[in-house]
Amino acid sequence: MLYIIGLGLADERDVSVKGLEIIRQAERVYLEAYTAVLLVDQQQLESYYGRSLIIADREMVESRSDEILAGAHEKDVAFLVVGDPFSATTHTDLALRCRQHDPPIRTRTLPNASILTAVGATGLSLYSFGQTVSMVFFTESWRPASFYDRVGENAELGLHTLVLLDIKVKEPDLKAMARGKIVYEPPRFMTVAQCASQMLEVEEDRQQGVCGKERLAVGVARLGSEDERIVAGTLEELAGADLGAPLHSLVLCGRKMHEMEWEYVREFAVDREKFDRVWRAEYAGKG
Amino acid sequence: MLYIIGLGLADERDVSVKGLEIIRQAERVYLEAYTAVLLVDQQQLESYYGRSLIIADREMVESRSDEILAGAHEKDVAFLVVGDPFSATTHTDLALRCRQHDPPIRTRTLPNASILTAVGATGLSLYSFGQTVSMVFFTESWRPASFYDRVGENAELGLHTLVLLDIKVKEPDLKAMARGKIVYEPPRFMTVAQCASQMLEVEEDRQQGVCGKERLAVGVARLGSEDERIVAGTLEELAGADLGAPLHSLVLCGRKMHEMEWEYVREFAVDREKFDRVWRAEYAGKG
Repeated sequence: MLYIIGLGLADERDVSVKGLEIIRQAERVYLEAYTAVLLVDQQQLESYYGRSLIIADREMVESRSDEILAGAHEKDVAFLVVGDPFSATTHTDLALRCRQHDPPIRTRTLPNASILTAVGATGLSLYSFGQTVSMVFFTESWRPASFYDRVGENAELGLHTLVLLDIKVKEPDLKAMARGKIVYEPPRFMTVAQCASQMLEVEEDRQQGVCGKERLAVGVARLGSEDERIVAGTLEELAGADLGAPLHSLVLCGRKMHEMEWEYVREFAVDREKFDRVWRAEYAGKG
Repeated sequence: MLYIIGLGLADERDVSVKGLEIIRQAERVYLEAYTAVLLVDQQQLESYYGRSLIIADREMVESRSDEILAGAHEKDVAFLVVGDPFSATTHTDLALRCRQHDPPIRTRTLPNASILTAVGATGLSLYSFGQTVSMVFFTESWRPASFYDRVGENAELGLHTLVLLDIKVKEPDLKAMARGKIVYEPPRFMTVAQCASQMLEVEEDRQQGVCGKERLAVGVARLGSEDERIVAGTLEELAGADLGAPLHSLVLCGRKMHEMEWEYVREFAVDREKFDRVWRAEYAGKG
């Protein structure tokens, strides 16, 4: 059996009681470590779980999944995923390979907290979110703006958009590679401020009013941990906000934002007076 | 401190390790028991947690929250919620009352698995869902069809819609009330088949092709448990499907359904040949 186990969002004790029991008795335990990260390091997990973890990077999961699945038709293998297992399509793909395996491998998934729902901590109603989008790090030559259309579709319906922010772990250093060395760049995690800036930049180009300076948004950091932080403001304000250590996400508020949502989220405002002014002018009763 | 703790979806061991520690040391422990239910009963929870639980019905949470919050500014009170705490707006409201309490009560939320993300077990990509809708039990005189417009908005964008199904627990028996007795009706949980039938019925009226007989959908039951069940088919097929014990939910598939999603979900088809035929004719490449 392949157990795909969600670890939740913050630390080693966010795993479910059931998940922990499986981890402790499995033959091998893998930790998927490229779509998200916990706020604690591998050692802390290993010491709490009482197991050593095999790090599964993108290359292993996508190209060497046979290693992960070896023997799983008769023994238990645990594959740990930060957050909820189904937040990334990668894991559906792994389950599909289990079905097609000869002999077939049974799979069982243990769901857990995901940023997709934990974002409810902002006070914004999960029923009023449209499709989720991702934001990648822009480079000089690569500034994909496809998010803009999808955020626009949500905005058209008055819905909120959750924007998931890029993380780069174990990226090869291209300059070192050119010299024949394999060196990895230090991990990078996009901040709320970087995301807001990129959104404003694309708005400058597209000018459709989807994510301009005065749109209300909420930045979140380290959700589900004791150290979680929520900051609300205009996109321009968030482009200057510092929410500290990763992971960050951003919600662009939709026009349907209800008075009860506003009442909750304004507590987190950078500048409450401004937040209220924009809400009254642009959001209240506009859904 | 008021701890609002998600219990996950299936049984007593889906709580996080951290959540369990808090439950075991809290002064009082409430179980919210009207927006969702676990697949195990109160006694099983109490015996595993080693605590007796105070059942918090709608009336207590909405009208007598002072009881729940009593003393929580200096002692720890745990408020348990099936699934994830923020799936229902009720709990945001409770957190708001903690802020406004005199003296203010600190709150901490422990996220957990939610049907909103566990539905990824169908193989449908969580990025391709639009807004979530609820379906209530129709009666002779009350057949609210507002869901139709929202499902239509999602469909227009090619997105999937998660439909959450009504549950009725502790509903007063009106006939007995008229005789001056307080008697509660037995709990009722909407099935996938009932939901599909109601959608077809509203489609008959509205005729906009949003949820007709040949639209593809996926029914899920008891997600996250060992006994989970997933059934895919046309809405007409699902209107005749029996997925067994509660809780059920339904996903109406959007036209953007990707080939990889189809490959995964077709395994669950009532009639795979028909499923494939409809997919090729109406969905494949139509996003």
